[in-house]
Amino acid sequence: MTRIVLGIDPGSRITGYGVVQMSAGKLTYLGSGCIKLARTGGSTDIALATRLKMIHDGVQQLIEQFQPTEFAVEQVFMARNPDSALKLGQARGAAIVAAAIADLPVYEYAARAVKQAVVGTGGAAKEQVQHMVKHMLKLPRMPQADAADALAVAICHLHTSAQLR
Amino acid sequence: MTRIVLGIDPGSRITGYGVVQMSAGKLTYLGSGCIKLARTGGSTDIALATRLKMIHDGVQQLIEQFQPTEFAVEQVFMARNPDSALKLGQARGAAIVAAAIADLPVYEYAARAVKQAVVGTGGAAKEQVQHMVKHMLKLPRMPQADAADALAVAICHLHTSAQLR
Repeated sequence: MTRIVLGIDPGSRITGYGVVQMSAGKLTYLGSGCIKLARTGGSTDIALATRLKMIHDGVQQLIEQFQPTEFAVEQVFMARNPDSALKLGQARGAAIVAAAIADLPVYEYAARAVKQAVVGTGGAAKEQVQHMVKHMLKLPRMPQADAADALAVAICHLHTSAQLR
Repeated sequence: MTRIVLGIDPGSRITGYGVVQMSAGKLTYLGSGCIKLARTGGSTDIALATRLKMIHDGVQQLIEQFQPTEFAVEQVFMARNPDSALKLGQARGAAIVAAAIADLPVYEYAARAVKQAVVGTGGAAKEQVQHMVKHMLKLPRMPQADAADALAVAICHLHTSAQLR
């Protein structure tokens, strides 16, 4: 059975994505990048709805393009402050709704669990995650940080859920 | 010109809604209530996506039913803590995305502005908002608190945006 996981690292400004396939125990890199939110000149109110729609539409397009079987997202353990938590929550809500509309099963993993699954230690630095993602997926170069986090949560899901079987 | 505003008061557990029409300067109550989130017995991960989809689908159904011309939502000034802010943000994101997909213009109003527009003072109590909403919309009885907040933000938008013309 071939599994394709769309990993998402949602943010209020940049939402990273990574798509990883697992077939016969072998990981294959399918794609990664960022859903960039264009700057709009309008009021804050209109911009918020536009930005959330861009995240939703971006995730929807990725689902159409890669036809994932599962969706994985990093769990937010503790945001810095209520204001950034609210903004992050809105972005997460927009991304998760797109997955739920497409009837994809949605899984959340704590940042520590992702680092543990990819680097082997829950306290790993961002650069170590990028390095291990590059190594595990045999990428020619280091993925950008947000894309690496999204690829890492996809790998974490594939490894963690495989162990449960 | 007849304007129909769908006001939403999103929450992680209860999302209130209120629909108010304005025609020739006259407010008319069209409907209000709560999008209730059924309890699910599954894991937290699956439940989150299911809950967010219920909010999204609920708002989508209200848009189909009432055909609003505008969408108004209460701005979150400051949430109590990062965890509740994240949950509230996710619910807001799911609701706002449904409005954005339907191409409705989205407006946000601070809680103080809503109370000012409905009661006449930014520091008004919840009961005063309920009372004034009942009075302004000639309702036979007091609306439930979440529905009243949603009706209040719809009224606030109709009054505030009218003054701008």
